Amino acid sequence: VLRSVSSAHHALVDRLQRNVAASPDVLSLAGGLPAASLFPRRVIAAACLAALGRTDRAALQYGWPEGSPELREWIAARLRRRGAGIDADDVIITSGAQQAIALAIAARCSEGDTVAVDPESYPAALDLFRARGLEPTTSLAASIAYVMPGVGNPRSTGLDDAAMRALVDSGIPIIADEAYTDLRFDGRDARLLLGEAPDRTFHVGTFSKTLCPGFRIGWLVPPREYRDEILTLKSAADLQANSLGQAILTEMIKTWDYDAHLTRARRLYGRRAAALCGAVRHFLPAFRTSEPEGGFSIFVETDRDGDDASFLEVAIAHGVAFDPGRSFRVAPGGAAISLRLCHSNLRISAIEEAVRRLAAAWKAYLRKAA
Amino acid sequence: VLRSVSSAHHALVDRLQRNVAASPDVLSLAGGLPAASLFPRRVIAAACLAALGRTDRAALQYGWPEGSPELREWIAARLRRRGAGIDADDVIITSGAQQAIALAIAARCSEGDTVAVDPESYPAALDLFRARGLEPTTSLAASIAYVMPGVGNPRSTGLDDAAMRALVDSGIPIIADEAYTDLRFDGRDARLLLGEAPDRTFHVGTFSKTLCPGFRIGWLVPPREYRDEILTLKSAADLQANSLGQAILTEMIKTWDYDAHLTRARRLYGRRAAALCGAVRHFLPAFRTSEPEGGFSIFVETDRDGDDASFLEVAIAHGVAFDPGRSFRVAPGGAAISLRLCHSNLRISAIEEAVRRLAAAWKAYLRKAA
Repeated sequence: VLRSVSSAHHALVDRLQRNVAASPDVLSLAGGLPAASLFPRRVIAAACLAALGRTDRAALQYGWPEGSPELREWIAARLRRRGAGIDADDVIITSGAQQAIALAIAARCSEGDTVAVDPESYPAALDLFRARGLEPTTSLAASIAYVMPGVGNPRSTGLDDAAMRALVDSGIPIIADEAYTDLRFDGRDARLLLGEAPDRTFHVGTFSKTLCPGFRIGWLVPPREYRDEILTLKSAADLQANSLGQAILTEMIKTWDYDAHLTRARRLYGRRAAALCGAVRHFLPAFRTSEPEGGFSIFVETDRDGDDASFLEVAIAHGVAFDPGRSFRVAPGGAAISLRLCHSNLRISAIEEAVRRLAAAWKAYLRKAA
Repeated sequence: VLRSVSSAHHALVDRLQRNVAASPDVLSLAGGLPAASLFPRRVIAAACLAALGRTDRAALQYGWPEGSPELREWIAARLRRRGAGIDADDVIITSGAQQAIALAIAARCSEGDTVAVDPESYPAALDLFRARGLEPTTSLAASIAYVMPGVGNPRSTGLDDAAMRALVDSGIPIIADEAYTDLRFDGRDARLLLGEAPDRTFHVGTFSKTLCPGFRIGWLVPPREYRDEILTLKSAADLQANSLGQAILTEMIKTWDYDAHLTRARRLYGRRAAALCGAVRHFLPAFRTSEPEGGFSIFVETDRDGDDASFLEVAIAHGVAFDPGRSFRVAPGGAAISLRLCHSNLRISAIEEAVRRLAAAWKAYLRKAA
């Protein structure tokens, strides 16, 4: 039951990406890592020392399963400003957004249920659904929907008004994953499903994309009637999210300007996205891509059927890596070769060089296939 | 399916313990918290600064689902010294021991399976089993066994040779939770089930009791054939254990003397356990308790049937708290009132005062019941 249809593909891609990680000569457009240059290391170090110095020792001791009260209030206040009628009690701190999604489906879904997703979606969510015996589908005639309303992954576009309306009108429960929402290049807040359908929205957020993934601190705001059950599931899963990361964040939110950090991050990623799109249009004009509205990546489609993992092997030999599109697809196989390209953790000169290598690899791949 | 038979009891005890946590006047023998005075805060702070200063930014970035290679090698080497034939690849870093247990049963068990446990066992494991539709039983004629071989919880005694032999001879899979094993007062290594039955032992360890719980860093060594499946389940659950805690530990193990720390911890807990046992014998001579061999707690049994949560309410009114024995019992209700008393996070004078108050509360409870 755990093996998805594409497990051989997964294993191959995993092996290739691990080789890439160990090869400093390969420029990686894969992985969706945030820019390490944006990590506010001095602020984090100072907050860590302050947290370790507190007499309550909360940074190192056990905490409650629902997490730090101050952090939950801060998250609730930000969501209230966007129209949610919630308070700190509605927020549960999770071990990253991934656990928030896992808790939502554990509470709401049974084996055999269907999950409505975009035609391309976040691979770790698709893997999770399949591991739990759920079937991803692109139809809204499903048991539950999983969406990224503000900025999607891999396309980095938001849901338009018609899609939002269809979702709200569908009446099905919604997992709204806002991992990238605060990283829209236009800085606009996305429509908040938690505000529009509070009784059936499982709202998911995280610090992993905006601040750093290493803390593994995310959050889930479930419909109120699911709170107790989710807390039971959270305790059973891992007792609580790590105290140290929560304690550092609790210190940081007291004085650090998170919104100014978001502004810096949006500008950096906006410039990198523009460089990536420009390079793809220039070096690979036959590739189709949509304009990203935020986030870390673009999704490009070729007009050639084939095995994207084979192309990845050729690309790595040319000194560049990407995420094969098949990992993001609800229906794997059969379609044209497609790629997710991430600009987020490469400097602009490296992005341009990576796309140059990708173009050379594509030529070599086509020659080989001919 | 999520509601255990004792959920009302759980909710009441949870509310009482939260009130206790907010009441500085109540001395708490509950909770199983490690001694905050043992947290090596300066060593942790220095390791954190070193980790944050590394150019690879691994402390803040995403990592692999199986965790830090250096940490896994360190864990494997310690287990090899006790007779396990494993290497770093066999070790998976988890979000605490709780997740390690959860992953083992997710890989090995199906709804309706039975789990052999001690007559009293770790409540969060019992809750987990029940949440997943498994039935705890005290018989070895079960689908799987969950044991704490070196130091049990709540009794803080190890499995004797006959119990170990019966377990090995049973032929069923074994979850061996060694959370407290390094905290045996005699400093002796417990027999390693991973060495005796490697093909069916899921070995569980953690830094939560020996170092600090706030990192949420534990580990699972599954039988080799389950490694890939467990990694898939781990990724689905929360992608990876938090990077920061792993990076700090990776720095600490380079130079810090963990074994010297264990020696200090064993001495401190040994003294506190002796004080607790002495005080119980002195002030509550009718209570039955066994001699703890390590760990944080003792389990005491009275000769009165009744509701241990009601006694807890009386105790709190007298300025002392404990963990009701029912939370640890496989078959809740019907038995004599029993209590887990933790000495781990109270100074010796506070332990003695807490037991004095407990004796006064017991007298008041008996008067009330009469």
